[in-house]
Amino acid sequence: MKAVRVVGYHQPMELTEIDKPEVSGPLDVIVRIGGAGVCRTDLHVLEGQWEAKSQVALPYTIGHENAGWVEEIGSAVTNVAVGDKVILHPLITCGLCRACRAGDDVHCENQQFPGIDTDGGYAEYLKTTARSVVRLDDSLEPADVAALADAGLTAYHAAAKVARDTRPGQTCVVIGAGGLGHIGIQVLSAISGVTIVVVDRNPDAVALAVEVGANHGIVADGTHVEKILEMTGGHGAEAVLDFVGEGGATAEGVAMLRRAGSYYVVGYGENIDVPTIDIISTEINFIGNLVGSYNDLGELMVLAAQGKVKLHTSTYPLADFATALADLDAGKVRGRAILIP
Amino acid sequence: MKAVRVVGYHQPMELTEIDKPEVSGPLDVIVRIGGAGVCRTDLHVLEGQWEAKSQVALPYTIGHENAGWVEEIGSAVTNVAVGDKVILHPLITCGLCRACRAGDDVHCENQQFPGIDTDGGYAEYLKTTARSVVRLDDSLEPADVAALADAGLTAYHAAAKVARDTRPGQTCVVIGAGGLGHIGIQVLSAISGVTIVVVDRNPDAVALAVEVGANHGIVADGTHVEKILEMTGGHGAEAVLDFVGEGGATAEGVAMLRRAGSYYVVGYGENIDVPTIDIISTEINFIGNLVGSYNDLGELMVLAAQGKVKLHTSTYPLADFATALADLDAGKVRGRAILIP
Amino acid sequence: MKAVRVVGYHQPMELTEIDKPEVSGPLDVIVRIGGAGVCRTDLHVLEGQWEAKSQVALPYTIGHENAGWVEEIGSAVTNVAVGDKVILHPLITCGLCRACRAGDDVHCENQQFPGIDTDGGYAEYLKTTARSVVRLDDSLEPADVAALADAGLTAYHAAAKVARDTRPGQTCVVIGAGGLGHIGIQVLSAISGVTIVVVDRNPDAVALAVEVGANHGIVADGTHVEKILEMTGGHGAEAVLDFVGEGGATAEGVAMLRRAGSYYVVGYGENIDVPTIDIISTEINFIGNLVGSYNDLGELMVLAAQGKVKLHTSTYPLADFATALADLDAGKVRGRAILIP
Amino acid sequence: MKAVRVVGYHQPMELTEIDKPEVSGPLDVIVRIGGAGVCRTDLHVLEGQWEAKSQVALPYTIGHENAGWVEEIGSAVTNVAVGDKVILHPLITCGLCRACRAGDDVHCENQQFPGIDTDGGYAEYLKTTARSVVRLDDSLEPADVAALADAGLTAYHAAAKVARDTRPGQTCVVIGAGGLGHIGIQVLSAISGVTIVVVDRNPDAVALAVEVGANHGIVADGTHVEKILEMTGGHGAEAVLDFVGEGGATAEGVAMLRRAGSYYVVGYGENIDVPTIDIISTEINFIGNLVGSYNDLGELMVLAAQGKVKLHTSTYPLADFATALADLDAGKVRGRAILIP
Repeated sequence: MKAVRVVGYHQPMELTEIDKPEVSGPLDVIVRIGGAGVCRTDLHVLEGQWEAKSQVALPYTIGHENAGWVEEIGSAVTNVAVGDKVILHPLITCGLCRACRAGDDVHCENQQFPGIDTDGGYAEYLKTTARSVVRLDDSLEPADVAALADAGLTAYHAAAKVARDTRPGQTCVVIGAGGLGHIGIQVLSAISGVTIVVVDRNPDAVALAVEVGANHGIVADGTHVEKILEMTGGHGAEAVLDFVGEGGATAEGVAMLRRAGSYYVVGYGENIDVPTIDIISTEINFIGNLVGSYNDLGELMVLAAQGKVKLHTSTYPLADFATALADLDAGKVRGRAILIP
Repeated sequence: MKAVRVVGYHQPMELTEIDKPEVSGPLDVIVRIGGAGVCRTDLHVLEGQWEAKSQVALPYTIGHENAGWVEEIGSAVTNVAVGDKVILHPLITCGLCRACRAGDDVHCENQQFPGIDTDGGYAEYLKTTARSVVRLDDSLEPADVAALADAGLTAYHAAAKVARDTRPGQTCVVIGAGGLGHIGIQVLSAISGVTIVVVDRNPDAVALAVEVGANHGIVADGTHVEKILEMTGGHGAEAVLDFVGEGGATAEGVAMLRRAGSYYVVGYGENIDVPTIDIISTEINFIGNLVGSYNDLGELMVLAAQGKVKLHTSTYPLADFATALADLDAGKVRGRAILIP
Repeated sequence: MKAVRVVGYHQPMELTEIDKPEVSGPLDVIVRIGGAGVCRTDLHVLEGQWEAKSQVALPYTIGHENAGWVEEIGSAVTNVAVGDKVILHPLITCGLCRACRAGDDVHCENQQFPGIDTDGGYAEYLKTTARSVVRLDDSLEPADVAALADAGLTAYHAAAKVARDTRPGQTCVVIGAGGLGHIGIQVLSAISGVTIVVVDRNPDAVALAVEVGANHGIVADGTHVEKILEMTGGHGAEAVLDFVGEGGATAEGVAMLRRAGSYYVVGYGENIDVPTIDIISTEINFIGNLVGSYNDLGELMVLAAQGKVKLHTSTYPLADFATALADLDAGKVRGRAILIP
Repeated sequence: MKAVRVVGYHQPMELTEIDKPEVSGPLDVIVRIGGAGVCRTDLHVLEGQWEAKSQVALPYTIGHENAGWVEEIGSAVTNVAVGDKVILHPLITCGLCRACRAGDDVHCENQQFPGIDTDGGYAEYLKTTARSVVRLDDSLEPADVAALADAGLTAYHAAAKVARDTRPGQTCVVIGAGGLGHIGIQVLSAISGVTIVVVDRNPDAVALAVEVGANHGIVADGTHVEKILEMTGGHGAEAVLDFVGEGGATAEGVAMLRRAGSYYVVGYGENIDVPTIDIISTEINFIGNLVGSYNDLGELMVLAAQGKVKLHTSTYPLADFATALADLDAGKVRGRAILIP
């Protein structure tokens, strides 16, 4: 089959012919890829940023946001059948450790991460397991939802925490109106009564965020912290959901936070660097957010099927992977780029 | 009446004769002080560290850990009667803001803090309100529990959060085996099934902590992070309850934390300074902790009356306040120093 | 002032002239009534159904769903000013018992219930306290929201519990598409992602419920339990929110419930009568629901101001109270009847 | 191997020689039985009470409380090794349905129940899967803990819910001081600060319950409801944990319940039969309780290894199964009867 392989760091990936993956374990599932999301992380992989952490042996196939059709299943697979449309949870998990048994499979002690530390979805076929495939509603197509598999799932997971912690009349500031921000805003709007205020440097992005569900939009121009304080009677917001995490976002975000409020970290880059005296005297919290669980992905697919979470995508044939990556790097992709094998 | 007053920063406090406080509002309560805790914060007040924050007008009476007997009540007070033994919640709260109405009175928008920004308890009498007095069980004496009013209440509040978040077989590392640490350990032991591991540089303090309820004690000697990891199968602890917050404690504490674990900040001094990439890739949380609520204080007094939380105290006559403060500063007080008017 | 008084059970109420209430306590608030909801409970009061329970001394003024303008305040009132538009929480609570201090003021140990056990709002003025008045947004008028004070608040309180317990893709069956049902459906739609299925015998009421936010409507015709099971893959619904509670609703509701599901009791009349073996073998729960808290009322007013919860009302001059009650009894009121002094 | 088989309802079970079970699936685990609990349910099985529900084909092997040593494992089993000491969760679950994926494996949609609907543990060997085996601490022996696998796990699961819902100073009434009651009391004492009051008709059982951790014991003599009300200032208990569920226990239990309190149903026999008006006017809840999850069993084994939960057992050779069942039926077993192959 065709696959896009990392053959060395700091050198172009190659589209080559490799063996199609085969079922070897009883819970294995082979998926024919219908769409693979092109993500900034893929650029970072090529730059070697994940080399030490993933310790993946080169060459390997990248692509960690995948959806498609079930091609073949192992002997013990009961939750999907050949031909089913599916989206793939980004992790392959063991199902036996305490975290898996608590529904918190993202913290599985024996996980694999296709596209990062094993073969991913820039390919015609990918091997995963029964524990990672979520059946899609008839109304959804793999290429349309693939990018929700990782980026969208992370935004859902964090937004669902905010939804559980807030009430009508309270405020959630969303920092960052990019891809994840848009998903987060749509999710908050669909499942919670919190007032959503989006902050971003890009006025167009702010306008679009208001269109998809934010109650208020603020362009980050140096007066934005002050504006949030004004809007909240001088108290600040009960929740700050930060999809940026760099360029000074965290200091500003903390300044927007109300006493007893919570700061949800999603974007990354800089440090959370806050005096403990400030943390205790205002009793604020910092909540880390990784990708969501398998059940989170199922819930997100429900919202997608209901039309409550939508994603703009630009598709590229698999053979044009280099163009897709270049467009992403140049900021030319509207929405998310998706490779179609 | 007699009262110890701050008459200027960086100069000795003075024991003087001032007017006894009087009931002026319908919910006012005048308490005859039975014991006032001497706290390191009192030293900081004199050093001017709270000057900007409290904006208190000098002279005023310090002392924020108070218990005694109800001397006089306002016309609308129904929850205590003259003569009742009471401990005082450290804050005077409004009862009408949203935080008060949610039971989260510590975040009252209109609060006063006797001993910090208004007259406190180094005196024969103190004025508070019906909202701040918790009746004591017959078996408890004001002087014995006064120091639980603030320091103890903070430890209870944080330990109760840990108790709600953990299960048998999970581990809570308690950093710091001092006064708050001892209360925290007794509380965890009384109300949760978590395994308690205490870490402190002082071997005697560690030994005492094990006596009052810690399951394991570790002397901080440079190998302690490694020892915690060993004890937890290399994973780290589900909870770290940090009563130190300085001298490198937070970096070590974070290194002891398991994926998806929570770090409870109580002690303060240095910054929480952690890369956002680490926060999200392990999905850890930082939970701020201020003093507990009025109901928390009621619960702590239940544990005290049941003998589950004990505090060693050394008493001094009010007139010897300077000795008590000097002993505290010199590290000569065993347990907590209490002034008796 | 003018007031409608119960002068004896089973005899007409009388509109008479009585003294205007006066501020006597420091937290008292006198409200000029802008609208008083006419409720079926008012009919029950006259039939003597509340006589034993309330032990109210006759004559007294009924009306327990009230909103208006602040006319006068006691010396310690800080949360409202004269002239403010307000809605009244139905209970007067003490603010000092443990329930009040936990934010659970509905279980106050020292409560009064104007309109039931003390003078209510079928009058020009009513006396309550600072703890019971919620300021209204400029966009809301007292007469438009008065009926949300009790009936609407109960629906909000129960629906908010369902919202916290369910996720996208799960189902909540709402039994009863009457006044409370409509509020409940609007609330669920505004603050949760649960799929809402409404069941009622009246096809018009079902159609209207779908218009205000239910995802599916089912006319109760004997096949409705079966239909719910079909819609949920044979499993039943994760939540049943029952605004009826009589005429066999509870047995049907339990039959619609999924394993580990919860049944929210709001309507009343018959008994919950279920074998313990069924409760444990499917591990289902029954959750009681009384009126909401003060903060719940604040949240509901936020949703009302945002236009997310609307109520159809028919207004009557106070002098026409008898007509309003007769219309209600005859089923002739569309939406809720409101008396305007 | 030897196994005790149900060969027909209402006729004696038979000890016969059957084939030893074999690994057929990748997650299968064959356990050499070290102890099998003899439970009242086993008597009910023989009386045909489970015939319709389980639809088991006769003959089959009973015994649903099992512990032992791992004898053989399937190719995909990673969490236990041959020779490990294990206790068996009573259910075999699929690991793929939404409930399993949420950690709520007891509500698995594709479960088997060895000893009830497939071959159980009155035998030398039993076949289960990797998902049902919990490794035992070195200090625990299979025969000592086997009876915790089902009865004890149910008590743990319910008591852990009470622990999460209550605080120091609140009261939990435990109805029934038998086997489950003793486990429940030990668990509450180990992991919560609630005040435990046990009620039973048998004075010796009450005395023993106080020995293992209840704070107060009350003999049910007709004045017990009144005594509970007296002990709680007339308010009743925040929690009632009912291990009886018949003979009028539920009506008495509800009468003991405080406003906003919760009734935890574990024992069964009669109906919960309560007017909806009472449920809503006091806002009480009824919480169903089935057996605990896999992780619950892990937590219970931690408490057992720590010596916090102990069980008195009487052992019988497997060949004497009829004597054990007869002794149980005659009320002659002290603690729990355990068969040793």
